[in-house]
Amino acid sequence: MLGGIEAGGTKFVCAVGTGPHDLIVSAPISTTTPAETFAQVITFFKEHAPIEAIGIGSFGPIDLRPDSPTFGYITSTPKPGWGNTRFAGIIQDAVNVPIYFDTDVNVAALGEHRWGAAQGLNTFVYLTIGTGIGGGGMVDSKLLHGLIHPEIGHLILPRDKAMDPYEGHCPFHEDCLEGLACGPAIEARWHKKASELPPDHPAWSLEAHYLSVGLVDLIYTLSPERFVMGGGVMHQAHLFPMIRENVKRRMNGYQMATIPGGDFDRYIVPPSLGDRSGVLGALALAQRASD
Amino acid sequence: MLGGIEAGGTKFVCAVGTGPHDLIVSAPISTTTPAETFAQVITFFKEHAPIEAIGIGSFGPIDLRPDSPTFGYITSTPKPGWGNTRFAGIIQDAVNVPIYFDTDVNVAALGEHRWGAAQGLNTFVYLTIGTGIGGGGMVDSKLLHGLIHPEIGHLILPRDKAMDPYEGHCPFHEDCLEGLACGPAIEARWHKKASELPPDHPAWSLEAHYLSVGLVDLIYTLSPERFVMGGGVMHQAHLFPMIRENVKRRMNGYQMATIPGGDFDRYIVPPSLGDRSGVLGALALAQRASD
Repeated sequence: MLGGIEAGGTKFVCAVGTGPHDLIVSAPISTTTPAETFAQVITFFKEHAPIEAIGIGSFGPIDLRPDSPTFGYITSTPKPGWGNTRFAGIIQDAVNVPIYFDTDVNVAALGEHRWGAAQGLNTFVYLTIGTGIGGGGMVDSKLLHGLIHPEIGHLILPRDKAMDPYEGHCPFHEDCLEGLACGPAIEARWHKKASELPPDHPAWSLEAHYLSVGLVDLIYTLSPERFVMGGGVMHQAHLFPMIRENVKRRMNGYQMATIPGGDFDRYIVPPSLGDRSGVLGALALAQRASD
Repeated sequence: MLGGIEAGGTKFVCAVGTGPHDLIVSAPISTTTPAETFAQVITFFKEHAPIEAIGIGSFGPIDLRPDSPTFGYITSTPKPGWGNTRFAGIIQDAVNVPIYFDTDVNVAALGEHRWGAAQGLNTFVYLTIGTGIGGGGMVDSKLLHGLIHPEIGHLILPRDKAMDPYEGHCPFHEDCLEGLACGPAIEARWHKKASELPPDHPAWSLEAHYLSVGLVDLIYTLSPERFVMGGGVMHQAHLFPMIRENVKRRMNGYQMATIPGGDFDRYIVPPSLGDRSGVLGALALAQRASD
């Protein structure tokens, strides 16, 4: 059996299995202190021994350079208690199997590529819109890394303060995609949880507007074959048609022929694995690495 | 010998040779009608026969999908007379050697990777800032393509019309990087050629501002190891330190540790091949393909 860890800023979820039809998933483990959280993760895998390898998809930023002294660490996260935290090494020391480590969003992208909405694609983007905004994906069939890894949530957006005076939720930048469009930004702007705002609330056209600008920037940079959009905010299914229309209008005819068949319903889609993209992707990471 | 064509919207340059130290370069061929322009290109290669293969770096958008009926065409360019123009096939019919075809900017990136400022890098971006703005590069050692190819010039930028009331030069979008920061935009805004504006003219801080926003968006999307910035506008060498400072300030400490050694002088650089990146890259494309 293989193991997977989806390590989020709010909760960790662990699993053992080989894929969607053979999967034991842990109860959610609250992300408290690293020591407490890792202890529960390790207990779960010890209860399900033997395990051949573990894949981890972690919130970040994380260090993915194998030659770095802090390889496998969570690095400069603003999350209290988690800055510069050794992660992959702690799990390896305790469980003593090979550990494979990547970003939460790259791992979710891998899950969707293996079993979900991105099967057969070479270049695509996976986005999560929730307590933060993150993006990963593949370019030419390889997970996107670069020097470190993408931080798509920090794309700089145009804004009109007359239309939206909200100052933004990101501690690093004003006016970045995450700062303007993550779940907590919606909540702070409208003084209600996103899930409590009705589909015709102006919050949603504003949300679709910001997300669409981000998508168009990603189209012009990566030319993806598809966007898979997950995370808590995207549970509001009415956002999908709004985003599709907005992207279409915004590209204003430029290169529209390249969206296969002009079919935006298949170009911007929810994850087919629902909230399991991450934990299944973590299994796929362990499996791919052990091939 | 190998052949290369750098096909720009203003001029074409052809070359035969094997690299920077063994290179015969044609006189610039004005980009007039496709028939006239291609005739001069073909004459150059016939005069320098025999040639084993030709690499082409073309202005775009272009069709790079080998299974497409318009493979090797320039597609939806706004340039009069050049929309939906067969290109690679015309050259192949006349010269009868294998033809390799990619974007002008990917080909320039390849030239810099082979012989210039991007040697040894896996993930980097090449930008040209001239009559338009374009970008190419490599991700994980492969030229960036995706579904079609990047159109980095069309990144959507924030703007402050009180600071810069100029409406933009792009026929497709208001407020895109190319529309606000290409050479003709500088000229239209200040009523002088960019090359005639002194280094302390406010044009340059505005130009550095727009280019830096574009660079930061690319950092958050691709996490490149280096930016190579060429094209006519970047002949103004004083722009480089202004852009470096602006990018540094704009990232506001986020992930700064990942710019190797924090060394922005090596992170944002001019092409080492000067104005030869494109034509040498076209040779490299022919060479790589014929390996």
